[in-house]
Amino acid sequence: MITIYAYDWVPGFAKGMVRDYRVRWALEECGLAYQVKTISHTHKLTDEWKSKQPFCQIPVYEEGDLTLFESGAIVQHIAEKGDILLSADPVAREQAKGWIFSALNTVEPPIAQMVATTIMYRKEDWYKGAMTAQEIMIRDRLAHLANYLNGREWLVGAFSAADLLMASVLRQLDSTDWVKSDSVLGPYQKRCLSRPAYRKAIEGQMADFTGSAPPH
Amino acid sequence: MITIYAYDWVPGFAKGMVRDYRVRWALEECGLAYQVKTISHTHKLTDEWKSKQPFCQIPVYEEGDLTLFESGAIVQHIAEKGDILLSADPVAREQAKGWIFSALNTVEPPIAQMVATTIMYRKEDWYKGAMTAQEIMIRDRLAHLANYLNGREWLVGAFSAADLLMASVLRQLDSTDWVKSDSVLGPYQKRCLSRPAYRKAIEGQMADFTGSAPPH
Repeated sequence: MITIYAYDWVPGFAKGMVRDYRVRWALEECGLAYQVKTISHTHKLTDEWKSKQPFCQIPVYEEGDLTLFESGAIVQHIAEKGDILLSADPVAREQAKGWIFSALNTVEPPIAQMVATTIMYRKEDWYKGAMTAQEIMIRDRLAHLANYLNGREWLVGAFSAADLLMASVLRQLDSTDWVKSDSVLGPYQKRCLSRPAYRKAIEGQMADFTGSAPPH
Repeated sequence: MITIYAYDWVPGFAKGMVRDYRVRWALEECGLAYQVKTISHTHKLTDEWKSKQPFCQIPVYEEGDLTLFESGAIVQHIAEKGDILLSADPVAREQAKGWIFSALNTVEPPIAQMVATTIMYRKEDWYKGAMTAQEIMIRDRLAHLANYLNGREWLVGAFSAADLLMASVLRQLDSTDWVKSDSVLGPYQKRCLSRPAYRKAIEGQMADFTGSAPPH
């Protein structure tokens, strides 16, 4: 049995965004059965949790003897089980894995940084200058991505784990119109997020928020 | 034959740091033969290069019908060919792949962001505030990494592709004492970088800088 761990509560801005939904989405696409166990923000700081996830984060994936963390690694692991999220063709398969890294190591870092800066440092006097610099970097990456995707339905051949992760990365820009208003990226993002498996993943995460906020 | 693409010239601060050395390191560890082709910073903006690397970056890896970019994906691809850079044991193998993602999607992003900020925005009035915030984020990640590595020689079992990439990520902090002065991370980093294959990779990159600076 596959088990994934998620939070039992998060603040409003994080609802539907915590990275366990990326793993749920992959499992739903592949039709694999799984159970969800939830943990609290108090528990994530314990040594017991650190033995599963050294950076005190979510999600964790368990399957027999294997305990795995990092949503990107987990999605890749699920995808490698068959040919639903990665092509059976060895070249297309490796290229899609390349795009997994592209999503997470080239496109996501400046976006995640901007999100973190917004949450933590919105009131600092250096906030506006840093955000402008970040926007320049993000828009540069988006322009290259749009240039590549122009005329393509998916990143490599059919919908793959790479599209799943790229769309998850782009979602973090939903408060801007940088993706939505782009004639290539907007429709691409819509194609990804209209998949039933994506909706089930988000609904699953929302339904599991049955805990309460940590004490202050 | 394996071909990798690298730059024929970079400015001083980037010498020995361009990511093709990560790929060279992996190939040297595995004893695989490869040839290097170099491109210029003018060429990286051409449509021809974009058809190989949509983000106009280095390195690119070619092997028969496969063209692959993203140094993380390439290192993983090389490692998956055998059991030198990834354990033959399936559980340890997946866990090391998990740590590849950890190095590139959890530890590296704030570090790479700090490096980019230093290079591009050192003279801005918001620079100091943003850098302090970045240092807080990086030190948090380093503390969790040190806590995990304490008592371990390598991330998972024997030296693996995960250590190769984690050490490459940590190198970007060489201008600080955050890694060097840490009683766990300092020696870990030293163990990684004392490998002959690492030295060959850096020497190879340096020897291939035979081009000249782009016109302004």
